[in-house]
Amino acid sequence: MGEAEEQKLPVLAIDLGGTKIITALISHECQMIAREYCPTLADEGPESVVGRMISAADHLLNLRNISPSQLSSLSIASAGIIDMEKGVITSSPNLPGWHDIPLRGIIEERYKISTFLLNDASAAALGEHRFGAGKGANNLIYITVSTGIGGGIIINGKLYLGSSGSAGEIGHATVDVNGPGCDCGNTGCLEVLASGTAVAREAIRRISRGESSSLTEMVAGKIEDITAEKVSLAAQDGDSLASEVISKAAGYLGAGVVNLVNIFNPEVIIIGGGMAKMGDLLFDPVRQAVRERAFQLSAQAVRIVPAQLGDDVSVFGAAIFALEQKGLD
Amino acid sequence: MGEAEEQKLPVLAIDLGGTKIITALISHECQMIAREYCPTLADEGPESVVGRMISAADHLLNLRNISPSQLSSLSIASAGIIDMEKGVITSSPNLPGWHDIPLRGIIEERYKISTFLLNDASAAALGEHRFGAGKGANNLIYITVSTGIGGGIIINGKLYLGSSGSAGEIGHATVDVNGPGCDCGNTGCLEVLASGTAVAREAIRRISRGESSSLTEMVAGKIEDITAEKVSLAAQDGDSLASEVISKAAGYLGAGVVNLVNIFNPEVIIIGGGMAKMGDLLFDPVRQAVRERAFQLSAQAVRIVPAQLGDDVSVFGAAIFALEQKGLD
Repeated sequence: MGEAEEQKLPVLAIDLGGTKIITALISHECQMIAREYCPTLADEGPESVVGRMISAADHLLNLRNISPSQLSSLSIASAGIIDMEKGVITSSPNLPGWHDIPLRGIIEERYKISTFLLNDASAAALGEHRFGAGKGANNLIYITVSTGIGGGIIINGKLYLGSSGSAGEIGHATVDVNGPGCDCGNTGCLEVLASGTAVAREAIRRISRGESSSLTEMVAGKIEDITAEKVSLAAQDGDSLASEVISKAAGYLGAGVVNLVNIFNPEVIIIGGGMAKMGDLLFDPVRQAVRERAFQLSAQAVRIVPAQLGDDVSVFGAAIFALEQKGLD
Repeated sequence: MGEAEEQKLPVLAIDLGGTKIITALISHECQMIAREYCPTLADEGPESVVGRMISAADHLLNLRNISPSQLSSLSIASAGIIDMEKGVITSSPNLPGWHDIPLRGIIEERYKISTFLLNDASAAALGEHRFGAGKGANNLIYITVSTGIGGGIIINGKLYLGSSGSAGEIGHATVDVNGPGCDCGNTGCLEVLASGTAVAREAIRRISRGESSSLTEMVAGKIEDITAEKVSLAAQDGDSLASEVISKAAGYLGAGVVNLVNIFNPEVIIIGGGMAKMGDLLFDPVRQAVRERAFQLSAQAVRIVPAQLGDDVSVFGAAIFALEQKGLD
């Protein structure tokens, strides 16, 4: 097959997240052809998850009656710290037991096509830059705030991955050096203070020590069932504890965003992930922090906007990454 | 004059700092031809400082019997937040009274040659990348720790300046969101916790409240004369208060460097400025913080090293910036 023909084949893109695996067939022009979801069931460990990922990919190919040789490449966006040179997931807070898993090699071996592996938030940054809230920007930062906090960086229109492929770990930058320890081994990271997990934990902590909140009723007294989404709903309904918890987390996020504005002087900061669905409740304090505390020149240059591509952002990003890499061959 | 000939002319490079102005004639091959120092006397305000800068430049040209038309360009590295598009110093913590000073235009008007204006730490990053501790690195961060804390960023071998030219303000990234206010309007910035000014202030604070230290004798009781350099000397002589003060500042600097490692995954972090002269006293805790708290993959990829170019780093950087920009014409 000629190179030009190969470049018109679709990419099989996979988003391997802590809760779900998205498998997508995406055309060489970045159109979604087909998409499947399945649960990650991360607690079952890497072998089981890799098996499920392969089975989901096989299923999608079968549904469309496509063989792996009819793909231009396979591209995986994964949570975790990825050694891009080796194609290895070195660790992943949301994938228990994943240490030094050579996922790229495993998949390449299985399907016999060129395979890419990159961090899911980096993929998302690329997706939002090419087709979402960051179109046309030279420099942007993408932040996903959900269970954890991840980040991706576009510099001069290109995805910046750092020297090993592990750049962009904005969620693991300290904003409170005297703050609580994070699973990553660092202290007072943005993730431990401003993620969805942090919001739920803080609400649970306060209610456990006897504070009253409509959340208690919302979860029928099972306070361990409180999630960031429920805290957000309660806040929108006027619950003051919920509002305070979100406001505190948004304050930390604001501090982290101010840091990014002062360090990167970007044109756009895009906030995605589950917490971004809180809208103004989250964005207002973040924008206010930037107005009040970042350097004026940098504050005036930046737009702080919600992500546009939704749940498919990382599969799109993974596909774009593969298509652009292939284009460079 | 032909373009090729023009490209062989020297650059007049100026480093406008809070305490001194360095004026240098640098060849098109980046060799130092001549150099002059004069005090900034920043307290006299912008008009006076600009006059002194011009007088220093004239003096250097006269000494070498060179007219402005025999320069390829003039390039100024300055402390402060610089709007590069407009060539304006918007503000500068170490240059009192400097607000929206159109320095590039003023100098261009005076000498009738193309003039560049960039941040001094960005210039230093470029200098260290081309000729110093960062040679050959794709991605590096330069941090200057002296009166203030500044930073410069090299991405893919190129100086990264952000969307307005104000990227790299690493000294004004919060590491302690509950910490003291900084002159920049932000809270718990690295600069207010780990700069030379912070070290001196903390030593003075502790001695003022009655703690004993050999520093009191060193400054003959005039504790307001304590500087970071003196604290460093006292620490090297075994003074425990001085050691604690430096260790605390180095701890904050370590937190800031861990953040940079996790965000940028760079090959090199270069620390320059007066505080870097403390050597292991500063570098050991910073390297330890990175080993213990940054992601392993990124920690293993990075070297944390002292700057190599000394006081001339920013004039070299300014000259390189101008020569490379002219090369792009």
